[in-house]
Amino acid sequence: MKKISLLGATGSIGTQTVDVIASNPESFSLEALSMGRNLEKGLEIINKLSPKLVCVQKKEDAEKLQHDIPAQTKVVYGDTGLIEVATFPDAEVLVNAVIGSVGLAPTLAAIETGKTIALANKETLVTAGHIVMEAASKHNVRILPVDSEHSAIFQCLNGENEKEISRLILTGSGGSFRDRKRSELKNVTIEDALNHPNWSMGAKITIDSATMMNKGLEVIEAHWFFDMPYEKIDVVLHKESIIHSMVEFIDGSVMAHLGNPDMRIPIQYALSFPERLEIKGSKPLNLWEVGKLHFSQVDYERYRCLALAFQAGKEGGTMPTVLNAANEVAVNHFLKGNIEFLAIEELVERSLDEHEAVQNASLEQIVEVDAQTREFVQSLITQRW
Amino acid sequence: MKKISLLGATGSIGTQTVDVIASNPESFSLEALSMGRNLEKGLEIINKLSPKLVCVQKKEDAEKLQHDIPAQTKVVYGDTGLIEVATFPDAEVLVNAVIGSVGLAPTLAAIETGKTIALANKETLVTAGHIVMEAASKHNVRILPVDSEHSAIFQCLNGENEKEISRLILTGSGGSFRDRKRSELKNVTIEDALNHPNWSMGAKITIDSATMMNKGLEVIEAHWFFDMPYEKIDVVLHKESIIHSMVEFIDGSVMAHLGNPDMRIPIQYALSFPERLEIKGSKPLNLWEVGKLHFSQVDYERYRCLALAFQAGKEGGTMPTVLNAANEVAVNHFLKGNIEFLAIEELVERSLDEHEAVQNASLEQIVEVDAQTREFVQSLITQRW
Repeated sequence: MKKISLLGATGSIGTQTVDVIASNPESFSLEALSMGRNLEKGLEIINKLSPKLVCVQKKEDAEKLQHDIPAQTKVVYGDTGLIEVATFPDAEVLVNAVIGSVGLAPTLAAIETGKTIALANKETLVTAGHIVMEAASKHNVRILPVDSEHSAIFQCLNGENEKEISRLILTGSGGSFRDRKRSELKNVTIEDALNHPNWSMGAKITIDSATMMNKGLEVIEAHWFFDMPYEKIDVVLHKESIIHSMVEFIDGSVMAHLGNPDMRIPIQYALSFPERLEIKGSKPLNLWEVGKLHFSQVDYERYRCLALAFQAGKEGGTMPTVLNAANEVAVNHFLKGNIEFLAIEELVERSLDEHEAVQNASLEQIVEVDAQTREFVQSLITQRW
Repeated sequence: MKKISLLGATGSIGTQTVDVIASNPESFSLEALSMGRNLEKGLEIINKLSPKLVCVQKKEDAEKLQHDIPAQTKVVYGDTGLIEVATFPDAEVLVNAVIGSVGLAPTLAAIETGKTIALANKETLVTAGHIVMEAASKHNVRILPVDSEHSAIFQCLNGENEKEISRLILTGSGGSFRDRKRSELKNVTIEDALNHPNWSMGAKITIDSATMMNKGLEVIEAHWFFDMPYEKIDVVLHKESIIHSMVEFIDGSVMAHLGNPDMRIPIQYALSFPERLEIKGSKPLNLWEVGKLHFSQVDYERYRCLALAFQAGKEGGTMPTVLNAANEVAVNHFLKGNIEFLAIEELVERSLDEHEAVQNASLEQIVEVDAQTREFVQSLITQRW
């Protein structure tokens, strides 16, 4: 029985993690969870899985929730509550499925208490990869990927020697606008952008998928997860999302992980690793039903955000923090209808241009750069729109 | 430095094995080899790699060859010579790349002397899988696949738990007639059949690829290699031969091995395992250059030989011996222009219908069934054609 803490239980990855845990009561138990302000969804999860500790965002929500649930589930709130969940003594594995840089501090706290980390929070490695990986190494803690791409690469590396890798090849669907030319992206709507062809995901990540910033953040994550120089990381467009990613070895062999687009597969693998468990009710992948798999080269002019991510990753230091923060603010404004789609990449690029990278930044410096970038982007938006 | 014996050095797999050895003089040495009657090709290999022992088929060839080469290379001949090469004391690995059931006895002899077997000879496992795998287990000997399909599966199983396999999925190109309907197969020529779209291989295996008997033999081999019931072995048509085969696990994950169609990759892997070595001058696989991968379901009416192979495998015992022997004779006659293409499957089917399977057959029984089948097919051909 693996005991699990879950940050971000009511989000897209969170609810699917809950599904995986609930479907395997003989293998997993949910000990502690955090959520934002979706109390209704949270209550449902609490009633189903009876965690011992729950963290919500706001104090008033905590008080309200404690009324509605049995007293043996303790409710806490805010940043300190998040740390309590992440370091909950009974849990062996922390699933970090929150969105945004709020995931960083609890992950580090969990590492310090020796917990295995199942990481779905991109910002953790993107903004503080050097700190997180060093802490993981120091505390001898394993960081397991939850993202389908990194899980695929991780599985391709099973039993392999990392010194024999010649290239990591991430696949990307190209997002909701992949069939449009750059000139056709000018006036796309939020609704268009949210209509992802393969995966059902949260709003932020669906937009990031349309700009391919999502893939860019994954490239930076892959750099840290697998200790791989950017020169050995490649992206290929693959619209069916059946091959989830690949690893090429020095002998020309390419190992790939394939599957139906079902996030429960990588989520469960991170929880069950090194074992695999049956996924009840999942449809087997029969390639003859898919018929064709398509691949094409990324046009880095078309997908400017992906180019910017490679650039930020290679420059290193606080550059990826700027990339991520600028993107987060820009996407937020796009989702609110405040700016147009192509402004996202423009704002990210302006922010990178403006920034002088700090190498080996401390957590405090990262937090500062993050805040400054958000302010900078906000000010650009206020000026222009 | 791995010391290697090679059976079938002048054949298609044999010469590519020689290439791999010659390209990696710091990793491999060729200690002993066997060949048929292609003395010219053999001489070239001997001059290049200076093996200590060489076996040819005929006594007169042995005498002739011994004249042309340095005395430190000893030349032997015939079946006993083959055993000498297979059990050559200095060699750690035996690469068995002969064609036909002649590969069986030397493989067993090599297993008894504790050598690792790199197996490219299909008939060894198809006709005597139960004997060979039992001997390998008894002598704690590893049998490594050389075929690209089995090497792919073997690599997909790196670091995995075999109990978590739900299905082996072999890919097949469909061979040289894959774009023709069954009704269009009646009058195909030998030249048409030998024109394989993806792989450059020997004549017998190219015909077996056109009938998909090759895939059928591979299914039976996979059954033995990976101890997998036939119900868990599937075949999918994949005309590009880029995915070399796959393994599906109980969680819905499918691991695949991809690569350019280059037999040096699986040959070298069998020799270098568990390491991987660079293959000089090999082109990396860029899926965007391939563009599309196609998959379709096998029509077992269209590819009758593959259906017969599954049937023979499931019935077990000496049935696969009959399948293989009947096919060998029939293909030989097709290659000589004596019978038409569709007669191959007919002759195999007639032979299977005629035979009463002997379960757990001894080597002697297998040899007898093999001979009887060949005679039976020969008599059918003599009667009709």
